[in-house]
Amino acid sequence: MTMSPARPGVRAQSAPDGGLPVAPTRARWRPLGLADVTIEEGFWAERQALNAAAMIPHVDSWLERLGWTGNFDAAAAGRLPEGRRGREFSDSEIYKLLEGMAWEIGRTGDPALEARLGEIVRRVSAAQESDGYLNTMFGRPGQRSRYADLEWGHELYCYGHLIQAAVARARTVGLDDELVRVAVRAADHVCATFGPDGDQRVCGHPEIEVALAELYRVTGERRYLDQARAFVERRGHGVLGEIDFGPQYFQDHIPVREATVLDGHAVRALYLAAGAVDVAIETGDDDLLEAVRRQTLRTLARRTYLTGGMGAHHEGESFGADFELPPDRSYSETCAGIASVMLNHRLVMQTADARHADAVERTLYNIVATSPAADGRGFYYTNVLQQRVEGQLPSQTEPSARAQSAARPPFFAVSCCPTNLTRTFASLGAYLATHDDAGVQLHQYAPATIRAGVTAGDVELRVATRYPHDGRVEVSVTRPAPGPWTLTMRVPSWAVGATVTAEGRTRAVEPGYIEAPGPQAVGDVVVLDLPVAPRFTWADPRVDAVRGQVAVERGPVVHALESTDLGADVATARVRTDVAPSDDDGVVRVRVATAQTDDADWPYSRAPREPQAGDERLVPLVPYHSWAERGPSTMRIWMPVTDR
Amino acid sequence: MTMSPARPGVRAQSAPDGGLPVAPTRARWRPLGLADVTIEEGFWAERQALNAAAMIPHVDSWLERLGWTGNFDAAAAGRLPEGRRGREFSDSEIYKLLEGMAWEIGRTGDPALEARLGEIVRRVSAAQESDGYLNTMFGRPGQRSRYADLEWGHELYCYGHLIQAAVARARTVGLDDELVRVAVRAADHVCATFGPDGDQRVCGHPEIEVALAELYRVTGERRYLDQARAFVERRGHGVLGEIDFGPQYFQDHIPVREATVLDGHAVRALYLAAGAVDVAIETGDDDLLEAVRRQTLRTLARRTYLTGGMGAHHEGESFGADFELPPDRSYSETCAGIASVMLNHRLVMQTADARHADAVERTLYNIVATSPAADGRGFYYTNVLQQRVEGQLPSQTEPSARAQSAARPPFFAVSCCPTNLTRTFASLGAYLATHDDAGVQLHQYAPATIRAGVTAGDVELRVATRYPHDGRVEVSVTRPAPGPWTLTMRVPSWAVGATVTAEGRTRAVEPGYIEAPGPQAVGDVVVLDLPVAPRFTWADPRVDAVRGQVAVERGPVVHALESTDLGADVATARVRTDVAPSDDDGVVRVRVATAQTDDADWPYSRAPREPQAGDERLVPLVPYHSWAERGPSTMRIWMPVTDR
Repeated sequence: MTMSPARPGVRAQSAPDGGLPVAPTRARWRPLGLADVTIEEGFWAERQALNAAAMIPHVDSWLERLGWTGNFDAAAAGRLPEGRRGREFSDSEIYKLLEGMAWEIGRTGDPALEARLGEIVRRVSAAQESDGYLNTMFGRPGQRSRYADLEWGHELYCYGHLIQAAVARARTVGLDDELVRVAVRAADHVCATFGPDGDQRVCGHPEIEVALAELYRVTGERRYLDQARAFVERRGHGVLGEIDFGPQYFQDHIPVREATVLDGHAVRALYLAAGAVDVAIETGDDDLLEAVRRQTLRTLARRTYLTGGMGAHHEGESFGADFELPPDRSYSETCAGIASVMLNHRLVMQTADARHADAVERTLYNIVATSPAADGRGFYYTNVLQQRVEGQLPSQTEPSARAQSAARPPFFAVSCCPTNLTRTFASLGAYLATHDDAGVQLHQYAPATIRAGVTAGDVELRVATRYPHDGRVEVSVTRPAPGPWTLTMRVPSWAVGATVTAEGRTRAVEPGYIEAPGPQAVGDVVVLDLPVAPRFTWADPRVDAVRGQVAVERGPVVHALESTDLGADVATARVRTDVAPSDDDGVVRVRVATAQTDDADWPYSRAPREPQAGDERLVPLVPYHSWAERGPSTMRIWMPVTDR
Repeated sequence: MTMSPARPGVRAQSAPDGGLPVAPTRARWRPLGLADVTIEEGFWAERQALNAAAMIPHVDSWLERLGWTGNFDAAAAGRLPEGRRGREFSDSEIYKLLEGMAWEIGRTGDPALEARLGEIVRRVSAAQESDGYLNTMFGRPGQRSRYADLEWGHELYCYGHLIQAAVARARTVGLDDELVRVAVRAADHVCATFGPDGDQRVCGHPEIEVALAELYRVTGERRYLDQARAFVERRGHGVLGEIDFGPQYFQDHIPVREATVLDGHAVRALYLAAGAVDVAIETGDDDLLEAVRRQTLRTLARRTYLTGGMGAHHEGESFGADFELPPDRSYSETCAGIASVMLNHRLVMQTADARHADAVERTLYNIVATSPAADGRGFYYTNVLQQRVEGQLPSQTEPSARAQSAARPPFFAVSCCPTNLTRTFASLGAYLATHDDAGVQLHQYAPATIRAGVTAGDVELRVATRYPHDGRVEVSVTRPAPGPWTLTMRVPSWAVGATVTAEGRTRAVEPGYIEAPGPQAVGDVVVLDLPVAPRFTWADPRVDAVRGQVAVERGPVVHALESTDLGADVATARVRTDVAPSDDDGVVRVRVATAQTDDADWPYSRAPREPQAGDERLVPLVPYHSWAERGPSTMRIWMPVTDR
């Protein structure tokens, strides 16, 4: 891979610039932000509306109710430590919610939300100490001292989310903002404390790396980049203390540039990788970028679930070994999905490699869309691919122990995922498209308006589609460019048999990025046709846990069998793979035989115990992202087949 | 099931009585202890010798070196809490070692070991407080107060092991012993503190239940039984605080008599079940006994690995759901295996149900024998059925984080398993045989001398066998009984085609217990022939994780494929099941094709990806209990088959 040099035309990052969630100063393909991309309707617009109407207020009210927001008031009023509520990292939840609010304000300009954000920022600001230190868990009489527990204390992790929230403000309303000032003071404190002459350790939870690199992009202050780079480079040298989970848990087992695959705690690994990409880009460190690129590709090839989910172990919330991907014990944390989207979005801009945008799509539809309940008031923390036992409806009044997967609880004792979703949904538009001098690239398909500057001039596109329900994507111009330009579109890896129609000619296209002349005049249309017909999907034979089983996908959407539809425990299902899945206006059905296995005293025997075949019939599947919406059920994505 | 009444002939338990590890005062089949059963040579005799020569001294030296034994000296000298070493439950390791030493002294009378035990007991005794309280972790200035943390503090758990060690002394040297006096003082303190008018909670880790019931049997003091019963009955009513793992972790989720299957933390569940059996027997509570019996049978039918191992989750060290038995992520703790042996041994004496003795055999050969290294100086804490990545040789100088499975470390930060093994090997003889008025029952086969009293008089048997290498078991008398008696022998569930020859007649016998006339004269022989030829074994189709895979067993011994023998990663192996495993004087070979799977960008595809078949040849398997003895390897018990 060769790196493209910084290009003219990248926007200066010192003023509101269109709401870019990530803004590399050099990229093969440059980002387009919330001001340039508007999702108009359909799958993702509905979820953005739900985020605004339900998720953000719901999360805000729980943070108040549990007293985690109130921790800042208690700090300002000198009522700590007695008055503190929540775990050591609870400050970060308020910051992630602030980031979600900031993007949402950038997207819609909602004045009530602006007022609410301002109120919370004032409470946060009041708790900041004169030297910039800001954390409600440490440093006061009766609390442990600052940075006494970098392994578990999460202080730098919390700053990371504070800074990311401030970056969202800087990119939507500008640098003259109280949240930006709070974050800059905190960042300056971090640089003073952990700089070349200071504490040479790192945080047990990566996150500040990506945040400081972005703060550098926003402010132009080189010391933030230097500090981010230092935090990246220090890892892997055993700078943190020993813990039962081992140093890979907090990404201190191997230097980032020496690793060959992502390992250890999934969210920590992915946040760190995203930060390393940003550091690599800004410092021109092609070796580091290439290292992270290879790690990511190997992780996609060997350590990723069909859903895009990452993290195979509950213990340590970590990646498993290559091909160790148990569906029932998948951890596949929602936050790991979000972090994978962050990482792969960064990499597609640098590499123009469709595998990264494929990963973004798969993860958005099957992890990010799966976590929230249809009403926006419940969330999955983990995203299992197989539910063996019907869960119980969660308490609506108490936060859940975090890793319950049977139903979507309203909040968690460790509640990183709901707040992380608010910022992801509010900034989702940025993942749809990028631009370069030659034209515009479409990565994700949704009904949207997209504005971009290319060499030929400014252009405004309209994308019309019912995707993913339907695979037809129509691209037209609402404001033509003065000259010719290139429209680049991603053909997903699953889209065998896709065609593109431009200037009256239809041609077959292969998965990957394909190019067509950009529509020149209003009325011109380029049509991409992606065959979303449901299909059977098989796993690599090295994935032992799903041997002899098959999954069903329709377009980018993984489907699942629920006991609600089968009328029996899904453990009894056997799928006929000689009968193609049917598709009735998006409702996918497969031919399923139910099979009862008699109980035995001992579950092992001298010959295979064949279950007794029962009825065979067409059974509907549900999109995985909507499973368990009709009450407790057993569920499986991977279904045993009749003939193996 | 009906309960047999207490029978005449059960030994009084107030004096040394032949070294019974468990001594129910009523039983269908009554136990025989170390004084009655001597293992002469062969598989288990070698391990008992290794325990005496290596394991006990090795464990003793590590406990001294880590300072865990020294904690008692520090307590006596007033040097706590500063001088304390190890985790909150480290006292229990010294007690388990004392129990191991006590049985070993009972078995061999080793005077040097007796001196060493006396020395340790004096140090323990010196740390006991005047009211009987004894724990080096709590209760002193600068430490948390007594019983401030019953959820995690393990104080009552530690007493449990102290009392079990004292019971071992009482049953080998008698009640006039310092360790017995220490334990009685501690037990009296427990009864005073947690009795009807005291603290109504329980310990986060069951163990004291089984210990107090046995102390009652030894001393006849009813209050110990009442306290044991109270601790059993209090569970399941939410008496302990909330923890992330949920109340099933410390067996507080459901009353024992209401549970239908063992759940939660495996060792905790199994210790509690063993204690509940003892309480049920001594109080005549048939409902409680029947509840535990049903839970155990369902656990064997649905939640037990082929090895007899229990515990499918690393997180919470817990049972999984029914049929959730991943081989690579099996936890299958050594201590859970030991606890399962304790529980099933108790149940076979009460029920005469061969399924329990089958479980004991399977667990002894494949968990208890697997944990220790061939030199007795390394141990598995977990016993995985599949090792995906070659491990590294463990440090010989530092204790290991506990759940490393690739190799056998010399000791652990949480080191319950090595000490637990010392007591199990030293008392192993007791699992071989029982007796009743009519005769003698043989449950496990080893070259041994067995003495028992039956109605016809005393009889001394000799068992001659090379089991499990060979399936021929010859039973003769070295001291005939004055009259006829019945010899009962277990035919293991796997022993299809077994025969018994008695009084010159050979007959086919089915799995289960079979009866023959006891040999009457010196020179008479009863011969049991168990076909140990290697066989393929298949799992219930509901065990998703091993679908399309097969295991190989020979007699009671589970076998495994190691990369050391395959010359390649075992992930590449495909076994031909149309070619029976060969047996060359105990060396088992199967026909294996190696198959390479090409890497892909994404491990899921529209059609099954068939690996490229490579060479096919006969490859030796190793007994699972001796895997990883030749250096790091990948290993699997369940092997994919070529034809599915």
